[in-house]
Parts: sequence; structure tokens; C-alpha cells
Amino acid sequence: MDFLRKHIEEVVELTDDEFGFIQSHFGHIQKRKHQYLVQEGDIVDKEYWVVKGCVKSYFLDDDGKEHILRFGMENWWITDYESFVKRTPSRMSIDCLEDTDLLYITYENREKLTSQMHKMERFWAKKSKNGTVAMQNRILSLLKNSAKERYDLLLEEYPSLFQRVPKKLIAAYLGVSRETLSRLHP
Amino acid sequence: MDFLRKHIEEVVELTDDEFGFIQSHFGHIQKRKHQYLVQEGDIVDKEYWVVKGCVKSYFLDDDGKEHILRFGMENWWITDYESFVKRTPSRMSIDCLEDTDLLYITYENREKLTSQMHKMERFWAKKSKNGTVAMQNRILSLLKNSAKERYDLLLEEYPSLFQRVPKKLIAAYLGVSRETLSRLHP
Repeated sequence: MDFLRKHIEEVVELTDDEFGFIQSHFGHIQKRKHQYLVQEGDIVDKEYWVVKGCVKSYFLDDDGKEHILRFGMENWWITDYESFVKRTPSRMSIDCLEDTDLLYITYENREKLTSQMHKMERFWAKKSKNGTVAMQNRILSLLKNSAKERYDLLLEEYPSLFQRVPKKLIAAYLGVSRETLSRLHP
Repeated sequence: MDFLRKHIEEVVELTDDEFGFIQSHFGHIQKRKHQYLVQEGDIVDKEYWVVKGCVKSYFLDDDGKEHILRFGMENWWITDYESFVKRTPSRMSIDCLEDTDLLYITYENREKLTSQMHKMERFWAKKSKNGTVAMQNRILSLLKNSAKERYDLLLEEYPSLFQRVPKKLIAAYLGVSRETLSRLHP
């Protein structure tokens, strides 16, 4: 939990008592490679924070083709936000790409914690703002950039991803064919 | 300002004193059709809330082609969040598509208000969560949907947009050519 405290204190300072209260709202879970966190159809009740490992959130279309919304690695928050926020069945899944160690908070505990503690509302608001900026850039990139430019942007932003994630999945994230990706990254 | 109070109270209840304090942080601005709110290169210092009218946020690529990130109509919050959050020069612009009436809050006032008032932190956190869900769906749609499916989704979500916004701009939002759009919406 020390890592979590460090992560939160990058945004708001905490006393020992405050962090004790915060950590009582979290649980810990370990998953093996290929195990899932979210399955399509679930009403997603947890937001996850990756302590160690790597996960992907993805959508399968009617032809069974995989489209990757995002990856999650150390210090990243991940869930299906549509299902988590709206309390509707998830249209996507989240799987572990490596053995993965996670903390999680349930919807109810997150509501309790944010309504009782302004600092935690502020922390997640800040995370959400950064997420907004990243998604805004992803949308612009999908609208305007060539496959090559999207690839270069991803490489610049997340160099370690290319060591950890199969090329097939990078292609499914960029929205390009595996053949196109092979030309870009031989 | 009564509209703003109603809008905020959809998320958090306010006393008269609280709303008085909130409204003292906002300014009011009127723009004519074709005037801009944000120009590329600005460090964007205001977040806007549309009282009446319609705006677009867009990016011009090296060939001068326009890509639309989003539209903003009554009750929508809009700015360039990358520039506003990171305090960097904007890579996009925001123009008015109609005569538009807006409230705005500066970065400094928004920071003051959210740090002093948990309710307002909560309000914007909720708006930000809804924005996350909308952007998540837009990314999935750009990755997996055909032009026809993207068009139908937009029509379902924002029917009034099609009465207010030229087809050329709808095409620039969907990431399809004007010819493709004409086939979908004769």
C-alpha cells in the first residue's frame, strides 16, 4: 500500500490517519496471465490500480475482431468506465497480459471515500482530467494521423509497451492491420 | 445564472449563499457567429459553458484539412482541455457556429472554487466521468464502426445537431469524406 500512498501524494498530501482511512477502502487481488478482471456483460463494480503487471481493455466486434481501448501498466487506473459510472452491463472485457498484482476499490467505497474526503475527490478529479487529455489526443490521432504517425506517437509515449505487448495487440490498439504494423516495426 | 444553478443542482444541492459564492467566480461573454473562443497557439485560460448557441473545437492538419474533436451546445462544457490542464499552447481552435452566449470560469477561479468547495469538485468530477464515458465510446466507434454506424450513433445521440450544423462539419467529426456522408444522409 506504500506505493498507493506515494501515488496519491503526487496530487494531495496525506496524514497517516488519512491514509489509514483511505487504505481501509481498498482490496488487493492477484491474477495470473490470461485471467480476466472484467467480462463482457458484467456490471463492473470495481476500479483497479495496477501495482505490477499489464492488462488490456478490449472490445470484440460481431466478426470476433479485437479492438483495444487501452492498456494498463504500473500506476495506471483501469476499469470499464461506462459500466462503472452508469451501472450498465459492460460491452468490453479486461484481461491480464502478464501475472498482475492490483489494488481495487468498489463503486460503493469510492462513492463513500470521495463524498467524505475532499482530498480523494480532488485526487480522482485530477486523474480524470489527465485521462481526458490523453483521450482527446487519441481521438485526434485516430481522425487525422497516418498509421506511421500513430505508431510513432505511441512509441514516444509508452516505449516500454513495445517490449511487453505482442505486436498483434499494438495493431489492435492503433486500428491498423498487422501487416501495416510489420512494415512500420520490422 | 439561474440556468447554471439548475445545471449544477442536477449533481449537488446548493444553498443560496453557496450559489452566490459560485457565481462570483464566473464571467459572461457573447460571441457572434464565426467569432472564436480559442485560437491555435493560445494558452487557454477559460473553460466555457454554453448558455445558448453552438460551437466546434477542431484541429487543422498540415494540409489545412479540418478534424472536429467535438461540438458544444446548450449546457455543455467546452475548452481545449490539453491546454487548460497542462498550461501549454493550444493545438486546436474553438469557433462559434451560431451567435453564442456563454459563461466562463478562469483556470485560477476554477482552482480556487474546487479547492474551497468540495461540492464543486464533486460536480466537475461527475461531469468529467461522463465525458470519459463519451470519449471511450467515441474511440471505440472510430476503431470498430463503419461510416454508416458512426453516423447512426451520432444521429441517435444528438439528433438536433443535424439541423444546426452543416454536413461538411458532421463529416469532419465522423472522420469520413463529404461524399460518403452524402450517401448516408441524402
